[in-house]
Amino acid sequence: MLLQYAEALCARHLVLASASPRRREILGNLGLKFDVVVSRFDEDLDKAKFGNGGEYAMATAQHKALEVADRLEQEENSPFMIIGADTVVEAPDGTIMEKPKDEAEATNMLLSLQGVSHQVHTGVSLVFTDGRLVKSFSETTHVTFAPLDTEEIAAYVKTGEPFDKAGGYGIQGPAGAFVSSISGCYFNVMGFPIHKFAKTMSDLIKDETIKP
Amino acid sequence: MLLQYAEALCARHLVLASASPRRREILGNLGLKFDVVVSRFDEDLDKAKFGNGGEYAMATAQHKALEVADRLEQEENSPFMIIGADTVVEAPDGTIMEKPKDEAEATNMLLSLQGVSHQVHTGVSLVFTDGRLVKSFSETTHVTFAPLDTEEIAAYVKTGEPFDKAGGYGIQGPAGAFVSSISGCYFNVMGFPIHKFAKTMSDLIKDETIKP
Repeated sequence: MLLQYAEALCARHLVLASASPRRREILGNLGLKFDVVVSRFDEDLDKAKFGNGGEYAMATAQHKALEVADRLEQEENSPFMIIGADTVVEAPDGTIMEKPKDEAEATNMLLSLQGVSHQVHTGVSLVFTDGRLVKSFSETTHVTFAPLDTEEIAAYVKTGEPFDKAGGYGIQGPAGAFVSSISGCYFNVMGFPIHKFAKTMSDLIKDETIKP
Repeated sequence: MLLQYAEALCARHLVLASASPRRREILGNLGLKFDVVVSRFDEDLDKAKFGNGGEYAMATAQHKALEVADRLEQEENSPFMIIGADTVVEAPDGTIMEKPKDEAEATNMLLSLQGVSHQVHTGVSLVFTDGRLVKSFSETTHVTFAPLDTEEIAAYVKTGEPFDKAGGYGIQGPAGAFVSSISGCYFNVMGFPIHKFAKTMSDLIKDETIKP
């Protein structure tokens, strides 16, 4: 998909506009080399203005990437490709969940997710500073949690895992055991839809919108 | 699910009868402590004798766990809980794929998987040496690969990734980008169905078949 271009892409200056260690790991798995420049965008868009969590995440990802692009262009003249991403959890009632701020909020998030299916949306925005091409998309995965009792949720919250994760859980850690099944891209739940990213990049290379 | 018993379970002597670093990682994520004793079972059961890949994997997992149990019981008197596991890929035509032995076999496996959905089965067998309780199960996940051209497959085979993995790919590595979607447990594709394991252990503890 992208593997055959990985070497050529490494010659470009790729920048991941995210502090997430999961995103770093997933992109690294593809064989890409990149710098990390954490976006200073406030992530305070009005959720009510978006039709669903996917559109909200995509808009936030685009703001993150553009903020980093603006900053880097002021510092350096060589072209960059910036990768912005944002992940949200959409509860069955449509509530968009980001990172919980305390134990009580984490517990309430997990109580609303246990025993039912929810959606995880990751928005991705690619900003190419030469020509200012912006390509954004979102990916949705359906995740089903097994029924959990309050004791299980309390033991999980106690681990500290929920606090830097949208919806209050990380599928790649102990909460992986809570998930009875998923439908869609697993890496999207971890925070980066690697298949859709690779496909998008590969298409941009094939139609010569970008050169590897 | 199991998190609240993790501390108590750590007091038992758990043994993973598998050399797979992925299984070690997944079990470690649950907070469990365990030793690794690699099974010497030959993994040569006659596939034609099994109705599907899940039954074959479950039988192989049980042979692996029992072989380690027999060995450890001769060496030590204290009770163990042995965890055996085996993963196979079942191609759309029903062929059961294990690890490819060379580049040509890896390439052929990937050619038969690209653009279609296949099944990944992991069999798990838990052997409790006190009372000789054996509990075995299998889990199946459906995995859909995007269409891949021969260049992409060749680039992947060249990485050396396929050779210690059933079906010739590891979803947690660069091949993650080939997977457009999965349906079921992701960790099962990596080699260990963590949700079903946690649920099974939790049920055995709740009905007092085993004490944590």
